[in-house]
Formats: sequence, C-alpha cells, structure tokens
Amino acid sequence: METQAFMQSEEVRRFNRELAELDLGPLWSAIPELACKEPTTGAIPYLWKWETLRTKLMEAREIFTPDRGGERRAIYLQNPGLKDRQPWGWGCATPTLYAAVQLILPGETAPSHRHTQSALRFITQGQGAYSIVDGERLFMEEGDFLTTPLGLWHGHAHPGDEPMIWMDCLDIPFIYALGGTFFEPHPDHIEPPSRPDDHSPRRYAGGLVRPVSDRKAQTAPLGAFKWEQTRSSLDSLSQFEPDPHDGVAVEFLNPSSGATANPNIAAWMQKLPAGFRSKAHRHTHSTIYHVFRGSGCSIINGTRFDWSEGDYFVVPGWAWHEHNNEGSEDALLFSTSDLPIMERFGVEREESYPKNGGHQEITGHFEPKTL
Amino acid sequence: METQAFMQSEEVRRFNRELAELDLGPLWSAIPELACKEPTTGAIPYLWKWETLRTKLMEAREIFTPDRGGERRAIYLQNPGLKDRQPWGWGCATPTLYAAVQLILPGETAPSHRHTQSALRFITQGQGAYSIVDGERLFMEEGDFLTTPLGLWHGHAHPGDEPMIWMDCLDIPFIYALGGTFFEPHPDHIEPPSRPDDHSPRRYAGGLVRPVSDRKAQTAPLGAFKWEQTRSSLDSLSQFEPDPHDGVAVEFLNPSSGATANPNIAAWMQKLPAGFRSKAHRHTHSTIYHVFRGSGCSIINGTRFDWSEGDYFVVPGWAWHEHNNEGSEDALLFSTSDLPIMERFGVEREESYPKNGGHQEITGHFEPKTL
Amino acid sequence: METQAFMQSEEVRRFNRELAELDLGPLWSAIPELACKEPTTGAIPYLWKWETLRTKLMEAREIFTPDRGGERRAIYLQNPGLKDRQPWGWGCATPTLYAAVQLILPGETAPSHRHTQSALRFITQGQGAYSIVDGERLFMEEGDFLTTPLGLWHGHAHPGDEPMIWMDCLDIPFIYALGGTFFEPHPDHIEPPSRPDDHSPRRYAGGLVRPVSDRKAQTAPLGAFKWEQTRSSLDSLSQFEPDPHDGVAVEFLNPSSGATANPNIAAWMQKLPAGFRSKAHRHTHSTIYHVFRGSGCSIINGTRFDWSEGDYFVVPGWAWHEHNNEGSEDALLFSTSDLPIMERFGVEREESYPKNGGHQEITGHFEPKTL
Amino acid sequence: METQAFMQSEEVRRFNRELAELDLGPLWSAIPELACKEPTTGAIPYLWKWETLRTKLMEAREIFTPDRGGERRAIYLQNPGLKDRQPWGWGCATPTLYAAVQLILPGETAPSHRHTQSALRFITQGQGAYSIVDGERLFMEEGDFLTTPLGLWHGHAHPGDEPMIWMDCLDIPFIYALGGTFFEPHPDHIEPPSRPDDHSPRRYAGGLVRPVSDRKAQTAPLGAFKWEQTRSSLDSLSQFEPDPHDGVAVEFLNPSSGATANPNIAAWMQKLPAGFRSKAHRHTHSTIYHVFRGSGCSIINGTRFDWSEGDYFVVPGWAWHEHNNEGSEDALLFSTSDLPIMERFGVEREESYPKNGGHQEITGHFEPKTL
Repeated sequence: METQAFMQSEEVRRFNRELAELDLGPLWSAIPELACKEPTTGAIPYLWKWETLRTKLMEAREIFTPDRGGERRAIYLQNPGLKDRQPWGWGCATPTLYAAVQLILPGETAPSHRHTQSALRFITQGQGAYSIVDGERLFMEEGDFLTTPLGLWHGHAHPGDEPMIWMDCLDIPFIYALGGTFFEPHPDHIEPPSRPDDHSPRRYAGGLVRPVSDRKAQTAPLGAFKWEQTRSSLDSLSQFEPDPHDGVAVEFLNPSSGATANPNIAAWMQKLPAGFRSKAHRHTHSTIYHVFRGSGCSIINGTRFDWSEGDYFVVPGWAWHEHNNEGSEDALLFSTSDLPIMERFGVEREESYPKNGGHQEITGHFEPKTL
Repeated sequence: METQAFMQSEEVRRFNRELAELDLGPLWSAIPELACKEPTTGAIPYLWKWETLRTKLMEAREIFTPDRGGERRAIYLQNPGLKDRQPWGWGCATPTLYAAVQLILPGETAPSHRHTQSALRFITQGQGAYSIVDGERLFMEEGDFLTTPLGLWHGHAHPGDEPMIWMDCLDIPFIYALGGTFFEPHPDHIEPPSRPDDHSPRRYAGGLVRPVSDRKAQTAPLGAFKWEQTRSSLDSLSQFEPDPHDGVAVEFLNPSSGATANPNIAAWMQKLPAGFRSKAHRHTHSTIYHVFRGSGCSIINGTRFDWSEGDYFVVPGWAWHEHNNEGSEDALLFSTSDLPIMERFGVEREESYPKNGGHQEITGHFEPKTL
Repeated sequence: METQAFMQSEEVRRFNRELAELDLGPLWSAIPELACKEPTTGAIPYLWKWETLRTKLMEAREIFTPDRGGERRAIYLQNPGLKDRQPWGWGCATPTLYAAVQLILPGETAPSHRHTQSALRFITQGQGAYSIVDGERLFMEEGDFLTTPLGLWHGHAHPGDEPMIWMDCLDIPFIYALGGTFFEPHPDHIEPPSRPDDHSPRRYAGGLVRPVSDRKAQTAPLGAFKWEQTRSSLDSLSQFEPDPHDGVAVEFLNPSSGATANPNIAAWMQKLPAGFRSKAHRHTHSTIYHVFRGSGCSIINGTRFDWSEGDYFVVPGWAWHEHNNEGSEDALLFSTSDLPIMERFGVEREESYPKNGGHQEITGHFEPKTL
Repeated sequence: METQAFMQSEEVRRFNRELAELDLGPLWSAIPELACKEPTTGAIPYLWKWETLRTKLMEAREIFTPDRGGERRAIYLQNPGLKDRQPWGWGCATPTLYAAVQLILPGETAPSHRHTQSALRFITQGQGAYSIVDGERLFMEEGDFLTTPLGLWHGHAHPGDEPMIWMDCLDIPFIYALGGTFFEPHPDHIEPPSRPDDHSPRRYAGGLVRPVSDRKAQTAPLGAFKWEQTRSSLDSLSQFEPDPHDGVAVEFLNPSSGATANPNIAAWMQKLPAGFRSKAHRHTHSTIYHVFRGSGCSIINGTRFDWSEGDYFVVPGWAWHEHNNEGSEDALLFSTSDLPIMERFGVEREESYPKNGGHQEITGHFEPKTL
C-alpha cells in the first residue's frame, strides 16, 4: 500500500488511538511533521501601527496603574500565528521572545522584582523616569538602550513630569519552554539605590575601553547605552559601504566579556540611509523591529509591510526579508533577536536570496489592523 | 477596588478583548501567570510499564516497517501534562526532551538522515544491528550508550538475527520551540561506511586518555560507549559512599572537549545498591529514566512510583524526588536530562528536601495504565 | 651535619661536579633557589629620563635610517637587573616585555614584516605618519594607542612633515623564552593598502557597540584607539572615587572578544588627579609606564622615583609600589603589562601594603643617569 | 655603506656603547637576532643513558637523603645548550621544562609543599611508595602517570620495601621566566591524608565516564592514571594504522574539563610497534622522552640517537625528528611537552619533512657520555 494511504488506514488509526490511551504515540505518523526541511513554528510576519499602540496605551493609562496590580502598564505584541500555542500562547512576538510597549506616568512606581528571564529596554519617548537595576538608578532618555540580564533586581519610578514610553523585550517564551522560570518580588517593593545615579553609563562615556575594575567578566557592568554614543557610532560607520542586508548596523556589547549586552537577546541599531535598498536573505533567528525614526518598507516572504516612526514589526525565523528606505530621510531601526541562542545551539544558518539580484517579487501588501 | 476583583471587572475584560482583536495583549492580566515563583510547565511525573511498551511494540512489528513510511518503528512516551501543548504537543516526555523505544528486526533498514536535533540511544535488548553514524558502523549491544549530536548523518541496519530494542532520546521539543529545526534525508537512502567498523569505541577501550589525533575538540570523537566499560566504572565507584541523592552515578563525556557526550542532553548511569534509600531533592532540569536492571521505587512529589526492569519514568523539573531499592539486587538506572541546557542559560538550581531527614511523606501511589 | 654545611662539603661538591660533566644536575643544591617564597627574576625598578632618550634619539637620526638596516630606528629600555641574562639579555624592560622609543622622520619607511611576538604602540609626539597593519593604513596622532597582535603584517611610513615618536611594547622576551619566535619580512618591502585608510577607528567612533560584521571574535577588529575617545572616557570616570591603587584607570579592549586589545599585553591609561596619593600594593605582573602628561613620583620598594612628562619607568613583578601626584595638574600615565599572561597561567596574585595606611617609608631616592 | 659593514663601523659601535651606559640599547643592532625566521633557543637534541643515571642515582642514595636538605633526591637533565642561560641555566631540559629522575627509599619522606609550577610524575621502577596530593595518598606502580597541577600540596613517603624511581617533569623554567614563582612548604612537614587512599583512580577505573560529582571542571579530579588502563588503551588503538609521525599515541586528559591532565604540560604514551619507522616532522613545541620499554633510535636534525629502556632524550622545538623501532619487540615511549603553552599563545606550527619520503639523511651519530 502507498505510504500516505497506509498511514490513513483504519488499522493504523486504530493502533494510534490505542497508543494515545496508553499515553504513548507513534513516531511513524509524526515523522512528516518532524522531518521538515526547515523550521516551521507557526509564527507569521506581522506589523503593529504606532497610532494603534499609542491610542490603546493612552486608554490604558486611565484604567490601569502599576499599583493596582499587574506590575507594569504594558501592552505586548501578539503574533497571530502563535496565539493558540498551549499552554504559553500569550506574549509571543516570536517563538522565543516577548515584546511590549510600556507607559509610565509622573509619580508612578513599577515595583522591583527579579527573575530568570532576561530583559532589555529601548526608550522611545519622554524622559525623567529611571530604572533601578541592581541598586543603580539609570535615568532614561529617548534612544537609550538598557540591558537587564537574568537575575538582577529591577524596578521603575518616575520623578519627572512627562509620560515615558519604551519598548520591552524579554525571553519569557524561551525560558518558559525550558521550564526555567523563577520569579521573586523585592521585599522593599522598590529597591533602594546603593550606587550613584547613572553610575555605569557615566563610567563608560567614551571609546572602546573599560574601567579597570570591570576587567573581570560581569553580567552587566554597563546598564545603559546612551543615545548620543550610539548615534555617533552610526554616523562614523556611515562613511563606509553599508552591509547589503543590514545597512549601517551596530550591536550593543558587554564591555567585560565581549558578549552581546544581553546574553540571550541580541540588540542592534540600524540606519537605512535615504534611498537604501537592501538585498534579501533569511536566517534561523527571528527579529522584532521598532521604527525609531523615518519610514520605509520591508518585504517579508513576498509581502510588503510599510512602516513609519513608532511602528513595530516581526520577521520570523527563516523568512526572506529585505528593507527599503525610499524616503528622503535616514531611517533608524532598533531590533532585538534570539541570535545568541541560535548560535549557542549551533542551529543558526543564513542564506542570501538567490534570484533577481536579491530582491523578492512583491506578491502581497500587508494591511495593519486599525482602530 | 481590590486587584483581583478589578482584573475581573467588565471594564478590564472589555479592554482586554479590544486588545486581542488588535493582536495585542495586556501584561497586567498575565502577570500572575508570569510572576510564578517556580517553573510550571504542565509536565507531570509519570511511568510506563515495560510490559505495555513491549506488547505494543510487538504489535507494531506486524503493522509497521521502516520502509513503509515513518523512518523508524518507534513508540514515544507522551507526558499527559504536555499533551495539549500546541502546536507541539506530541512527543514530549519533558518540556525539552522526546524519548521513545525503537524496535528493529533482522533484515531491516532505517534510512539515514541528519537534523539539528541531537540524539542518543541506549541499547536495552538484543544485538547484531548497527547504527551508521558519520560513516562509522557501530554494532550495538545491550548496555551500550551511543551519542549522535546534531548534524551527523545516522541510520540503522540489522544484518543480525534477533530483534533489537533501544531507548531513543532527542531534544526535538526544545529545538522546535527555538524554531531551529532543519532535517535532511541522505541521498543514498542509507549512508555507506567510510571508516572501519566500531572505529571509535575500539580506539577508546581503556582509561582516561584519548588518541592524540582527537585532541582538537570534536562533536563526537567517540560514538559508542560499551557496556563493559560503564559497568567497570560503576563497580569501581561502588567502593565509596554513594551520593546521597544519586547513588553510584557516572556521566558519559566527550573525550575531546570534556563536555557531556551529547552537548544538549546529559546521559547518566546510576547504580542503586540493594537496600539503598536516597534523600530527596529537586532541581530545574527534568529527567527521563529507563530501568536497565533491578526494581525499586521513586517518590516524586509525594507519590510512590514502583518500577522494575524495562520500565520508563519521568521526573519533571522542580519536582521533589528520591529513589529506593528495597530489593536484594542492585538496580541500574539509565537516564537523560536537559541539565546542560539549564546550565548554559544559568537557570539550574537545586534544593535538598528540608524535612524528615530528606524523605517525603508518601501521599499517593501511582497506578500505571495496563492493557 | 647541618644542611647548609653539608651542602658545602667536599663530598657534595665533588659529586655535583661529576654530575655537571655528565650534563646532569643536583636538585638538592638547587632547591634553595627553587623554593623561593616569591618570584625573583633579577628585574629591578628603574627609570629613564625623557631628556636622555630624546637626545640619543636625535643623535641616532643622524646615524641610522631604517633602510640602512635594522628595520626600525628604535632605542629600547634595558633593565639593568636583566642585562646579564643569557642568551637573551638585551631588550628586557621586564622579564617578559620589551619596550622602546621609536623615531620616524618625514619621507622614511620602516619595512613591513610579521612575527609571533605581539606588538603595540602609544604615540607620544607628532603626526602625519601611518602604520599599515593588515592592509589598513592607520594615521597616528598623539595619545593614540595601536594594537598589532601576533601574526599581522605591519610596517610604517611617513608622508607627513614633522618627526614622529612613539613607544613600542612587544612580548619579545616571553616568546623567545617559549621558543616560539617566527619572523617573516613582507615580500613587497612595505605592504600595500587593501582597505580604506583608518577604516577600523572610523568604524568605532562611539560607544560600546560594534559593527555587526565584527561580532565573530577577531584578533584586532579595531587597530587604533584615538586619543579623543580615551580622554573622554577618563573625564567621565573622573566623576567618581579613584581606585585607591590605580587612580582613574581604563583598559583598552577588543570589541569582538572582550579580551584585552592585545591578547598578551594589557594596555592601560591612568589619570592621577592633582593631589592624588595612591595606596601601595604589589602583584605578580610587571608594568612599564610612560608619563604622557604631568609629573609626580612613584615609591617602588621604598625608593622614590621622580618622573615628569616623557619619562619611562618599570615596576617589576611583586614590587611594592604607589604613585603620587603632588602637582597642580592632572598626570596621565600610559602603561603596558603582562597581566593577561599571568592570569592565563593562574599565577597572578595581589596584596595591599599592610602598614602605615598603605604608604611605604621612603628609604632611598633614585638618581637617573644623565648625559 | 653596506648594512653589515655599517653596523660594525666605529661610529655605530661607539654610539651603542653610549646607549649601554645609559641602560638603553639599539634595536637596529639586535634586529638580525630578533628577525630570525624560526625559533632559536640554544637548546640542542640530547640523550642520557639509563646506566649513567642509575649509577649516579645509586651513589646519591649514599650521600643524600631528603631530610638532609634538598627536599627531594633527584638528578635533573641539563640540556648543554641551555647551561649558560642566566640567571636560570640549571634544570632546563628544554627552554620551558625541567625533567629529572627521583629515587626514594623505604622509610623515607619527601616533605609536602606547593608552588605555582605544575608537576607530573611517571613511575619507572618499583612500588610501595605514595605521593600524597591534596590529602589523597596515591600508591604508585610502574607505568603509572600522576598529575599535580599548580597549587596543590604534594609530598611523598615510602612505607614499602623496595627502592622506587620515577621521572619528574615541571614547568619550572617557564614559570621562572614569567616571574611567577611562588613556593610554600607545608606546615605539617608531610600533609596528612584527608581522603581515602587512591580515591581518584579507584573512582575512574573504566571507560569514558566521570563520577557525576566531578562534572564541574576541576584542576585534577583524577590524580593517577594506572598503567593497566593506559596499556589497554594502547592495545585497542593498535588495531588501526599508526599515526605516521607518532605511532600509536594517546594523551592523558582531565575528565572534568577535557584539557590535558596537566594544564601546562602535555603527557603522552606512544607505542612504536616492532618494525615501525615514522616519518619526520618538526613543530614549535619541545619534547622530553623516557624510554619505558624496548629500544630503537630517533633521528633528530640528521643525527642518529640510539636509545634503550630507561634512557631519556630531548627533541628541542623546531627540530626535525623521526623514530624507528628496528627491534622485534614493541617500544613504549612516555613523553612530556609544552604543547599546551604553545597552543595557548598561538605559536604552535607543524611541518612534515618534505624530502625523501619523510626520512632524513643521517649525517651524524650521537655518542652519549658514559662513566
């Protein structure tokens, strides 16, 4: 009998049911799903408009406050293709990463806690609030990137006078999948400072050097990477040919160890100069983008996704993608990905799009949900 | 309003529904689930009797043959607590690991393939078949442990004359969760040999030395660990006080790199001497056990699981567990776990059971499903 | 007989002579030397005045030119305590490191070569010349630090119009001691450029980020560290309490790997603020200092060494040392040491001076040789 | 003027003298020595006959006892080419390694001490004595290999009844060259046991597994490698084609870390089967050989060195060498080298002898010194 037909036969189906009742299962039936040539996680390419996010966030400010429960006033991005994952479907922007926008208002406090998930933040609007990480108050400004690897106490407070909004990214789905989630609230609600304010970024305000006391590898000797320096790096790197896939791209690093600033989640800042058109490629790691400045579009598996300042979009693993900036201003994209995890397990691969000079044919146009 | 009541209010529930329609989600509602003190994956402690497995395997021998589709005649262990995970519910013995028993008959062939999941095998019955791994035919005997890390071609064939049965363990769920699955069948159906038979175990038949040509770290310089040597190690180690939690326990290692023989999955062999009663502990990593010899019981989160030769059982992560051998013969347990993965991400913790001299009160008795 | 007397007896001395004739030797006689509680290499603390170095360098400009032989017009520092080491006595500032001042004049070329010794340069005077390293022309300015780890082609040329002077430091004695010296001249005399000028420093002009293409660990993704950035780092770090032993101190690092910029030789820049008085300590590693700016003194094993701009001085391993800046201007010290080597072999130790609040009693005053 | 003549001119020589008086030196004069294409350390190939060593050792037994001073009754091998090195000329078999034969008699004690040099021992004759390392008494037998990495307490005692002789190898010259020597005698003269006798070899008596408690990398989880196991490994490996340069060769490893058993000094056991003739090669690392069994010869840089049981010989770095066993019995060579150090500094190179099928022309015949 033909394999396909055989597998559908009553004999086989009855046997499989008997196995299921015994909490056993037939590998032979599962092989087609297992023997997939490439990763298929269900995650789809997707985009969320800033206008939508901002509106819901402002509505939420009326309804929720951090001390009314919930720890943080944050709205996360839900990849529709991962929504039905059980038991952990919520909060997956990609199979391994959670991403959200968080809003904190003057006078508010988000209590301190620590956990085995790694976190990072990219500040998109406002100033005056701080994160207190491991006893260090880091005052946040637009364009700043903060890293809070696993295990460090962290909380937020806002002694300033304007609303602050930032992007959060954590490896919650990944650590959950491992069965490695541990969480602990701080006994003092919000951790008190034990070091000078902005201690680490002030110690690291120039060049590729480290204070001698940080030579021994530490998790996060530098908690915040100020925008001024990141911008300055991009300006310098812009003197040269952009990378054909990534444009002018830098990665935040841990000055003690040379690893990515957050050990599980790579964080990049990319400039797509006005008129830049990248070549498509695909890779095992998935990426979450935030459009910091400018506008443009990305073609993902043939579908065009237009984006502008404030938007978020996801490129799932192994999806062909290319970015275009057809405008007259440079575009800046902040992104997070699980590239370090893929590398650590030896499953990272990359391929360049083989046809048409590296440019996909556009077969669809994504329409984002609006209010 | 009280937090709990507030979260259930119509106002909040309506807002949450609006978010869901926009493919967004409320962190505040999810925090109780996220802020869990300890890992909760849904995996439960469970046991499968050998009699049941063997019976179904023998039935399957009539119905399935590897070349009729399915690649391998294997029945996997399904943790009931993980059954409803979507999209990947099947094949999870633990959140990260798949385990199965495989049967191959004289004259059969299981075609060669390679993939990004790591595999290992422990031979429980029979002889005469071989695995061909990376061009090396490894003839398998009872008690042998074989490692096939990611990326190596592997297939099986049986020129011998008795049925062979072994335990398979792969990190399929973990690699799937990452979105890192790549699979490729061998162009020649079964890979032809390119090295002498049993080349690596014959090069490593004694002591803690390595052939000088293996000094550069390799994935699997030694593909098979013969039972004779493992048994001999356990005998030697038996001269000393057993570990209070693990008894007389050894771990298979990679002689090039000092890492576990399979980089993602730790494999141990433990002897519980007659009369041995371990002290309970718990740890982040989950473990799948095969009872190679003898009988006894394990208390897992207060439930007693009796086991005898051929049985399989699972200890999920963070579950209290202790093992007793009340018999007159030594018991031998082969086990696999995701300990290396937990360590690599810094989420491995261990605690000793704090009460009653390390012994849990038995509050239940597990009744395995029978035919 | 008493041990000491016994070892001097005729019987023993005659036996020892017999051994020597057979190319053998008596451990028992050597034990007192071997069983030394602390390292004793013969290296002594020492200082060379800039005036002297400059004068000889200027005389040398008349006599030597790179193309008349000798590869480079450099005068090295000779530690008097190491002068009689055979066969390698010359060129040792410390047991493991060579240091020299090099002068290159407009129009000159120092031919390209490569070797297994690691090199680094700190520019003390002038501008307009370049080092060409691995095909990249790095134009040098005062205060710049350049790293040339082992194996990279390097040469110098001077299209500018003023004399340039810099400090060289190489691990020549160490690699010689190993028996690991390999040297090769470039077939083209001076290597032609194969990358844009100042490519790497221009790619790294801000913050703790790296161009994404440098994420894979490389030996020297950044060849030159510009003074502006180093100065800026020191200014920032100056906001905080100086390290009691080292003042305001930064270390140059490799942005790909997190290791020291030169893998065998650590390079630091230290600011001793006006009025700063350090506490004494000692450590296994030896250090060579160049006074970049300002003046002050160091107490080394009780001897006071006064220094001013342009001077060089050596602190041998395990010597007590402290630095004072009694002036009204900040002092800047550039230094190189074998700290990475000591760490790699697990022999690095450190002790704080236990008496008198960390300040040694001054028992002598070093008089430098003058012309 | 021609370079050579110029360098010899009175003008240059006078200038160089002036520099020397100022404790400075001219790189230009030194460049010929520095710019050497290959390592030249002065070490020469050499051989010591066992008859000679044994005779002097027996004479020494009358003269010296450990407690009469000297710590150990050992006669070291002195490479004639390194004899005049200052200040450390004695005790160099190679530029980095010291090697000696040690004799201990029934009833004697060699006091415990610890130091930053790494040590290892290979037992050549006798039984009944033990080394006490880190509180573990290791009873030594012929063919056993013991490793004592830096920092561990070690001493010897002999409760047995026959003289014991072994080979010592330590990286004394290397650590001295670094300036990293620290030494400390044990306060109790000989360290008392704190673990069961032969604890570690008894825990490791089979296969490529490690007791689970040794999974965390340790310096020396296994202190002694019993001959039986090493011999068994060689027997197994003998089933295959010998390595063309090294014959049937195994390396002792650390089961916790996968590194060489002694982190700085590689230790190998090689079997040259009867009739085996290796092909010549050269490499940066230097090697000290002890002929454990059999006889044969080695051709080193064209000179033939005949050796037989008990002899020691040195192959300096970068010397061409090949080994022949023209006899009817297998030959066994134990060797130590600085290969790990060379690799750690990236200076290890290897070249095969390019002519005459890999066989050097014999241009000389070494005559060992005799009594």
